[in-house]
Amino acid sequence: MIDMHSPEGSALKIACIQMEPHVGDLEGNLATSVRLIETAAQQGARLIVLPELTSSGYVFENREEAVSLAEEIPNGPAVAEWIAVARRLDVHIVAGVAESDGPFLYNTAVLVGPEGFVGKYRKLHLWDIEQMYFTPGNLGVPVFETPYGRIGLIICYDGWFPESYRLCALQGADLVCVPTNWVPMPEQPTGREAMATILTMAAAQTNSIFIACADRVGIERGQEFIGQSVVVGCNGWPIVGPASHVDEAIIYADIDLSEARTKRNLNEFNQLLSDRRDDVYGGLVTIARGRSFF
Amino acid sequence: MIDMHSPEGSALKIACIQMEPHVGDLEGNLATSVRLIETAAQQGARLIVLPELTSSGYVFENREEAVSLAEEIPNGPAVAEWIAVARRLDVHIVAGVAESDGPFLYNTAVLVGPEGFVGKYRKLHLWDIEQMYFTPGNLGVPVFETPYGRIGLIICYDGWFPESYRLCALQGADLVCVPTNWVPMPEQPTGREAMATILTMAAAQTNSIFIACADRVGIERGQEFIGQSVVVGCNGWPIVGPASHVDEAIIYADIDLSEARTKRNLNEFNQLLSDRRDDVYGGLVTIARGRSFF
Repeated sequence: MIDMHSPEGSALKIACIQMEPHVGDLEGNLATSVRLIETAAQQGARLIVLPELTSSGYVFENREEAVSLAEEIPNGPAVAEWIAVARRLDVHIVAGVAESDGPFLYNTAVLVGPEGFVGKYRKLHLWDIEQMYFTPGNLGVPVFETPYGRIGLIICYDGWFPESYRLCALQGADLVCVPTNWVPMPEQPTGREAMATILTMAAAQTNSIFIACADRVGIERGQEFIGQSVVVGCNGWPIVGPASHVDEAIIYADIDLSEARTKRNLNEFNQLLSDRRDDVYGGLVTIARGRSFF
Repeated sequence: MIDMHSPEGSALKIACIQMEPHVGDLEGNLATSVRLIETAAQQGARLIVLPELTSSGYVFENREEAVSLAEEIPNGPAVAEWIAVARRLDVHIVAGVAESDGPFLYNTAVLVGPEGFVGKYRKLHLWDIEQMYFTPGNLGVPVFETPYGRIGLIICYDGWFPESYRLCALQGADLVCVPTNWVPMPEQPTGREAMATILTMAAAQTNSIFIACADRVGIERGQEFIGQSVVVGCNGWPIVGPASHVDEAIIYADIDLSEARTKRNLNEFNQLLSDRRDDVYGGLVTIARGRSFF
């Protein structure tokens, strides 16, 4: 495993754990996640981000298999274990988990900490065959208060919708954590940064927020994942990463989330979030509903 | 001047003219623009994009100077000349111009064609000391029908607001033309693509639209501009450019705007514009007005 570190010396050390879950191996995936969380905590990380669907794996054969790998939140085995680990190590953890709620399955991210369960987010924009198994998220885009700052959660394909990050920022998020299972995008040129990296940088810049993306690696039932976990600063530029395309890794960034608030001014006149023209954008919804293009 | 060409063979040749206007030299700037439009048309370009404030230059000393360099639209000298040139050469032209309308000044982009004046857009998001001279735009983000497809217009700092492009896309825009005067952004690392390029790529990908940015070059009254004009495809990747940081240039791209409609499907399940969750985003305005963060 190759670890990457950002310059030392700031208020909060974040770790993104880039690991390879194996679909169906709930116990093995959970054990791996705990081992890597312990490693990150030993390195001083206080906020640790894991990939999308860390405990279950990603490529389900059918809905039955997805159901068998899902759990209730917060009492299911993976989230309960992450809560226990967060208490023991005095850290916050963000992780992806298949959530069952009655007959419904959600692609969910949880935030847990030393005090226990903090909150969860259900993926709004489902990618590809996820639509066969999961119900689209119904909790909006919540932002949670933590001792380090305000944290929003989104998952993978949500990042292709600028509104996801905007909703976090407008609720005051300083950091958005992104558990993800990025796959190769159509028409990605070789030798260029992944479109996922481009979109993350654009979102960090346009919202003046930090963004921490923890991706998985490996090939699962023929589906390739692209790694390249990254932490981007509130100026839009990567602090650490992108990590390897293929290897497990932990990337560390020392950041001060308050910079998301204090460094927003671009010059004497401009601040990106207050420069928004809501008087004009208010029409977004109306326009979308009033036309038949899409 | 260094010209750059994309692969040949598609339906519409676009040209972005990267030139250096000189503040106050209305006649000289207009003459330069016409000369370069003629060159682009000789190369086969049918849609030609010029920078922001092509005729006036950018760095005004005071409001009085800005007023003296502004004109009424469409009867002022620069727009009237571009209309005449568009008729003569059978091309469409997008260009930036300082617009006077009674006591108000706007930072405006016009679209003209062989049939005359098509429409205009007034910059919504004013950058830095533009706020001393210009009134913020009040025409929303209009999208115009042309023989080649639907064209939206935005200007420079508008591109830092994902909503600008979103408004174009939701009205069916296939292409957004961006007359711009990009300046160096705070904290831009050397050796990386400009944040302007990153944001353009992200907007093209997330909206499945073509984007054609024509920047200026040069240093005007101490203000540096960064060039790097670019045409980005509806898959988010540059077709031609970014052009030079410092030299005048014309970049050409052969594109088929209908691809913005036919190539939107990412896979069997996903299409970026129809995957939007307006049921959730509807809260954007409410959230922005209900909180006091910004």
